[in-house]
Amino acid sequence: MTYCVGLHLRDGLVLLTDTRTNAGVDHISTFGKMHVAEVPGERALALLSAGNLAITQAVVARLQEGAWLDGAARTLLDVDTMFHAAQLVGAAVREVFSRDGQALANQGVGFDCSFLLGGQIAGGPVRLYLVYSAGNFIEATEDTPFLQIGEVKYGKPMLDRALSFDTPLSDGVKLVLVSMDSTLRSNLTVGMPIDLALIGRDALRVTLRRRITEEDDYFRMIRERWAAGLREVYLQLPPPDWMPGRTG
Amino acid sequence: MTYCVGLHLRDGLVLLTDTRTNAGVDHISTFGKMHVAEVPGERALALLSAGNLAITQAVVARLQEGAWLDGAARTLLDVDTMFHAAQLVGAAVREVFSRDGQALANQGVGFDCSFLLGGQIAGGPVRLYLVYSAGNFIEATEDTPFLQIGEVKYGKPMLDRALSFDTPLSDGVKLVLVSMDSTLRSNLTVGMPIDLALIGRDALRVTLRRRITEEDDYFRMIRERWAAGLREVYLQLPPPDWMPGRTG
Repeated sequence: MTYCVGLHLRDGLVLLTDTRTNAGVDHISTFGKMHVAEVPGERALALLSAGNLAITQAVVARLQEGAWLDGAARTLLDVDTMFHAAQLVGAAVREVFSRDGQALANQGVGFDCSFLLGGQIAGGPVRLYLVYSAGNFIEATEDTPFLQIGEVKYGKPMLDRALSFDTPLSDGVKLVLVSMDSTLRSNLTVGMPIDLALIGRDALRVTLRRRITEEDDYFRMIRERWAAGLREVYLQLPPPDWMPGRTG
Repeated sequence: MTYCVGLHLRDGLVLLTDTRTNAGVDHISTFGKMHVAEVPGERALALLSAGNLAITQAVVARLQEGAWLDGAARTLLDVDTMFHAAQLVGAAVREVFSRDGQALANQGVGFDCSFLLGGQIAGGPVRLYLVYSAGNFIEATEDTPFLQIGEVKYGKPMLDRALSFDTPLSDGVKLVLVSMDSTLRSNLTVGMPIDLALIGRDALRVTLRRRITEEDDYFRMIRERWAAGLREVYLQLPPPDWMPGRTG
């Protein structure tokens, strides 16, 4: 399994993914699930993937080779808008499905893949998309400024509570780390290290890219203070006034 | 959907369920999902259900009428141990499957049901079981002192972090309410009111049973203080020291 989350904020994008891949609990590996396509000053895009690794790697390979869109083979480095970039990812997904879908179905394996695509191309706005296994996609908006793929539920409540389009990027980083921490704790198939990228609005480059390991001092501090803080809040909640003094 | 959670603590059981039932988002109803079988001084059991309402109601009806176990029709009021009570729930599930499983499959409907069964019968220990749709079951232990059914993921991280077998009952009540609150916020198919029951160790009666509505002052206070407390903890986390001062 995987957990990827993207925030679409006024100041830009925050993108985070884990790196664990597993086929059963006895075959666990680390694979980067974040791919960057960047021409500094002109475009910066990041693609995060979840699902069957053979499928997602095939989609990424197609995108690097060139997938077919509107009569030409294109890559994320030569599409002219983010909307076309999302269409291109969808087209690559459909090409892989055409080639492998039936063979997978013959083995009882579903065509399981999904992608977060975020970025900006000069002349257009910052955008964040979620591309489904059918090759269609949705876009994050100011009302719903985050998208998730993979093991999404454990890390969703805190985003629902605290995130808005106006959240500063540095607070967004804190929030995705907290969201990832909740997921790591509750699901063994999501694992360290984790990959973070920031794409600031109108920067037209990846502003920050960082692999965070178990030894990362900042992430360790966040995990410890978050756990201790939650515990403190819970302990300070008063007991129910309708609770019998002794219940045994 | 549904969310039910049961805590198996040194001092007894804490059981909580929502009451929402839906068939699509345009057909939402309120149904009690907690059924109590009690003979004060002799036994106290509570059964919480998740899944297809026709199936779970059929299972509960069978249990009230008498399901077949070891050559006799029995109810939760006349089995002699909690283990037999769990076997009886499993037997009722299998009876309903025998009668309805094929007809449901003909309509493309899976046999979707699960149950939490907690309680104590005089002469035996407090026990908490999760009964699956196959009629088999697992039991909560001191190492893993909680079980959940239905929409379980949103409310799991806080239980993973804070709960232990030695958690006092009143803290357990706070934790299940916080866990339910996270689920209510993130999933529309889980809804108020919620039903709470406590079964204190060796009380041999339901120590407390309470329906908590939107207007419940204590739950409102918990929700507000929890939300405000989380927000406070998150805002007080320092920003990453590796974050560029300006990222745009």
